[in-house]
Amino acid sequence: MSGNRRDALRDAAIHVLAEAGGRGLTHRAVDAAAGLPLGTAKNYYPSRDALLRATAERIVEQYRRTTAELVASGARPVDRAGLAALLAGLLRNVAGPGAPRMLAYLELQTEAARRPWLADILATVVAADFAGFEHAQRAAGLPVTPGRAAAVTLALHGAIPQLLGGGAGALAAAGLDDVDAFVHGLLESVYGT
Amino acid sequence: MSGNRRDALRDAAIHVLAEAGGRGLTHRAVDAAAGLPLGTAKNYYPSRDALLRATAERIVEQYRRTTAELVASGARPVDRAGLAALLAGLLRNVAGPGAPRMLAYLELQTEAARRPWLADILATVVAADFAGFEHAQRAAGLPVTPGRAAAVTLALHGAIPQLLGGGAGALAAAGLDDVDAFVHGLLESVYGT
Repeated sequence: MSGNRRDALRDAAIHVLAEAGGRGLTHRAVDAAAGLPLGTAKNYYPSRDALLRATAERIVEQYRRTTAELVASGARPVDRAGLAALLAGLLRNVAGPGAPRMLAYLELQTEAARRPWLADILATVVAADFAGFEHAQRAAGLPVTPGRAAAVTLALHGAIPQLLGGGAGALAAAGLDDVDAFVHGLLESVYGT
Repeated sequence: MSGNRRDALRDAAIHVLAEAGGRGLTHRAVDAAAGLPLGTAKNYYPSRDALLRATAERIVEQYRRTTAELVASGARPVDRAGLAALLAGLLRNVAGPGAPRMLAYLELQTEAARRPWLADILATVVAADFAGFEHAQRAAGLPVTPGRAAAVTLALHGAIPQLLGGGAGALAAAGLDDVDAFVHGLLESVYGT
């Protein structure tokens, strides 16, 4: 019950951040978005920082779930094609159902520049992301070096803002108008054909 | 006179965005940061959107000036070493004196997800950035393909949030704790030795 309420509040906070930005993130807005009585968010997360922390943790949970679902659906990095399917699936999720989560993440990233404790939470995510993508590239049998693995991960990170709202011109400039072709091209650029 | 005032207001808006985020960007805060009488920002930029637009345009101006200064200082992409010097100089600028500009840019990027007209302004910047970096890689004599050039540019974009506030752990995970080594490694990953 309490767990459901917390999840409802944290999901609502993600949607508020995505739709109204850091400016719009208030306890009142989260209560309204969750369809819960005024005062609920304040009760569970007394300060705005507590709300930001809870939102960051929820985003991490959702990201892990999305990755696990893609792997369960067969996008396993057991070879180059499987890795490409996993990466393309993640990018499609960013541009699609995962967009609110990623927009909220970008908002948290800018808030983190002014809040070292939030930067620490996000740094854990980032470090796990680099390690996970390096592991996936190795599992796919690619001739990985730390530099190559990081180049692929950073390019995927660089793609996110364009997928979220870059518009057609920016997507084309980045080669992101076709996500599958983008991923194949990225792996080819770093690892050859 | 009017030009100086506009520049002072736009520079102040960048600092307000960097220090207080989108939440803190008000006409009153910009007046205070510029040390100008209350009402000045509102007089030049009547709406918050006008203020955002002016800030975006100022950021583009500053980015062009920084690039021109680096090129004038000898970081010319006439060969691989010159390109590496230019890219390392730009990343050092992001982590150093250009940090407020880049933080403000990240704030605008999140605001752009909710404002198509702002996304259009930023898309122009992004498209010019991809074209410019591709041109620089060609000028350095590298075996450029559009995919390789975009991979380098996206990895540089992906590096920005980490340089701005990723913390030591995230910088190390991304290989960004040594900017020169990072740039050499990135070019090596995409173009070989």
